Amino acid sequence: VGAARSDLILVTGGLGPTRDDITRQVIAEFCGVPLELDEPSLAHIRDLFARRRVPMPENNKIQAMIPKGAAIVSNPRGTAAGFAIKAGKAEIISLPGVPSEMKAMFEGWVLPHLAQRTGPRGVKITRLLHAFGMAESAVGEKIHHLMAPGRNPNVGTMVHEGIITVRINASGDTPEEASRLLGATEGEVRRILGDVIFGADGEEMEHAVARLLKERKLTVAVAESCTGGLVGHKLTNVPGISEWFLEGVVAYSNRAKTDLLGVPQDMVAAVGAVSAEVAAAMASGIRRRSGADVALGLTGIAGPTGGTPEKPVGLVFVALAKNSGLETRELRLVGTRAMIKDRAAKSGLNMLRLSLMGDTQYATRST
Amino acid sequence: VGAARSDLILVTGGLGPTRDDITRQVIAEFCGVPLELDEPSLAHIRDLFARRRVPMPENNKIQAMIPKGAAIVSNPRGTAAGFAIKAGKAEIISLPGVPSEMKAMFEGWVLPHLAQRTGPRGVKITRLLHAFGMAESAVGEKIHHLMAPGRNPNVGTMVHEGIITVRINASGDTPEEASRLLGATEGEVRRILGDVIFGADGEEMEHAVARLLKERKLTVAVAESCTGGLVGHKLTNVPGISEWFLEGVVAYSNRAKTDLLGVPQDMVAAVGAVSAEVAAAMASGIRRRSGADVALGLTGIAGPTGGTPEKPVGLVFVALAKNSGLETRELRLVGTRAMIKDRAAKSGLNMLRLSLMGDTQYATRST
Repeated sequence: VGAARSDLILVTGGLGPTRDDITRQVIAEFCGVPLELDEPSLAHIRDLFARRRVPMPENNKIQAMIPKGAAIVSNPRGTAAGFAIKAGKAEIISLPGVPSEMKAMFEGWVLPHLAQRTGPRGVKITRLLHAFGMAESAVGEKIHHLMAPGRNPNVGTMVHEGIITVRINASGDTPEEASRLLGATEGEVRRILGDVIFGADGEEMEHAVARLLKERKLTVAVAESCTGGLVGHKLTNVPGISEWFLEGVVAYSNRAKTDLLGVPQDMVAAVGAVSAEVAAAMASGIRRRSGADVALGLTGIAGPTGGTPEKPVGLVFVALAKNSGLETRELRLVGTRAMIKDRAAKSGLNMLRLSLMGDTQYATRST
Repeated sequence: VGAARSDLILVTGGLGPTRDDITRQVIAEFCGVPLELDEPSLAHIRDLFARRRVPMPENNKIQAMIPKGAAIVSNPRGTAAGFAIKAGKAEIISLPGVPSEMKAMFEGWVLPHLAQRTGPRGVKITRLLHAFGMAESAVGEKIHHLMAPGRNPNVGTMVHEGIITVRINASGDTPEEASRLLGATEGEVRRILGDVIFGADGEEMEHAVARLLKERKLTVAVAESCTGGLVGHKLTNVPGISEWFLEGVVAYSNRAKTDLLGVPQDMVAAVGAVSAEVAAAMASGIRRRSGADVALGLTGIAGPTGGTPEKPVGLVFVALAKNSGLETRELRLVGTRAMIKDRAAKSGLNMLRLSLMGDTQYATRST
């Protein structure tokens, strides 16, 4: 149906190795061509199984069967080869539905392919600036004048998992013009929002932290309770972090807080495990035992149960221990258990980021 | 445009507090009605800010402005109220674009609303069964006869982040009939695939593990290197896990492996930090120090750099320490750093799950 009306039909999914996956057969039939084995694709599938040291099930061979005459869209992340084939005036591009595979193939093959098809036609470029620690509405108030409808560059905001993203779309007749316009607006947004912006174009908070640790040549350790390992997980998503991240402790039980981090038992008894004091003792404890330059401690109530009127679900204390002393922050978070863990971890990393940015002791420190 | 052709128009996004969010204005204009303040929605927004102990920016008030005559779709997860309004024969439902908010509102309001609108019309029910540790193609070979096109229940497979999901769709004239048909096919899939299936209907591996720990009354501790805290993060996503999860150690540096886990320095020197021996020593070490009944140890090379011909990126060792001794497994994983971390963490949790299921010592153990 689409082929009569459209220039391009993008199909995702149905390229798996099982019987319910019939996309390749349907497209071949629609185009009136048979399926043919593509040897390089089969070799790639065999290689993936060999690297995993698993024998290749016979079924997977179907994933190298491609409609005759189609161009192969190779799959760097998985077994299913994609393909592109002409159907009358239209072009059908078929990609697997597994998100990580589909995205890699879309960015690696489809976008360049389309850019080539459409040719130069004026230039649009986009920059995403990511901010944390300010409400979206407050961001919107500050850059309201840049968000006028029809303005070039066009500016909008989005929010996802606690991160506010400012999107800047610039159009120009040439790449240089678009880039100049984008640069001017980006500069103004950065000037207005300041260090609330932690990164650009998909960069996560942990990348900003890792970059600062590397610049300052500082090591870090983390003591987590309510976040359960999420801060360590985020930090270790950054390649090369092993040079700066020494260790983490997930001290879920009070015994672990005492044994591993040296939090005094009578402190826990007196003020409770969820307290600024314990967060600070956790941060100091892991800094001391690991020998790291900076350390984070996090304790809180992720919920959904365990809250009290005095200490409700979402109450989290974050502490940062460094050479010049201790800093603690009290957070009041709302949402599901997963959201509270995520926002607490991001708040901890953000506290570390701001401290690394602001503290001149680090800039002058020789390691 | 859609209103002339469609019965239902679902709009997501553009309900934020900033100037670029014009969905509510556009829909009100299209319907020829003004925007009106909805007091309960405003109270909800004020309450969310109050709970976070942050003053409400004036901008957020716009999020309680609703086209006159619309039904409110309240937002349990955020500030933006959604709404539903008639436009001629069509109904327009407007939800925020933030995925967690949109999904909660879709499931909590839109689906029941649509079910009411369409009325009973035969019944369709779906069960998702999640499997780990077998290739999708191998799953497809085993249940090939159930995947015949046109069969009721209809059976298909999907894969996402290493998890193979078997989807069973059953249709019947009554709920009882659909449920009986679904039950029979589900039983057959479960019988054929056995303990490769770890959960159903969105359940994660960590939920299965937590359920088994609770049933067996066993405590767990985790020593992680390459996964960087991800196993702890996954386990602590389960509410109530604090009773069973005692502690985690993220031993990224060799010093942490020695100091915190008692891995012998000469072992690391002799066989390397990425080895079955070190994984086993990590698991035994944290089991001993935490007093947990069972413990996991994980060490590997998450990449993208750090691999050698003998120890390539994706080589991971997982060890499980328990009363009856030690078990280790060598994994050869492929993909990005994030994928390798994720698959390693899932493999570790799956090893623990299978051990908890199979081991009769636990079933008879008195704690």
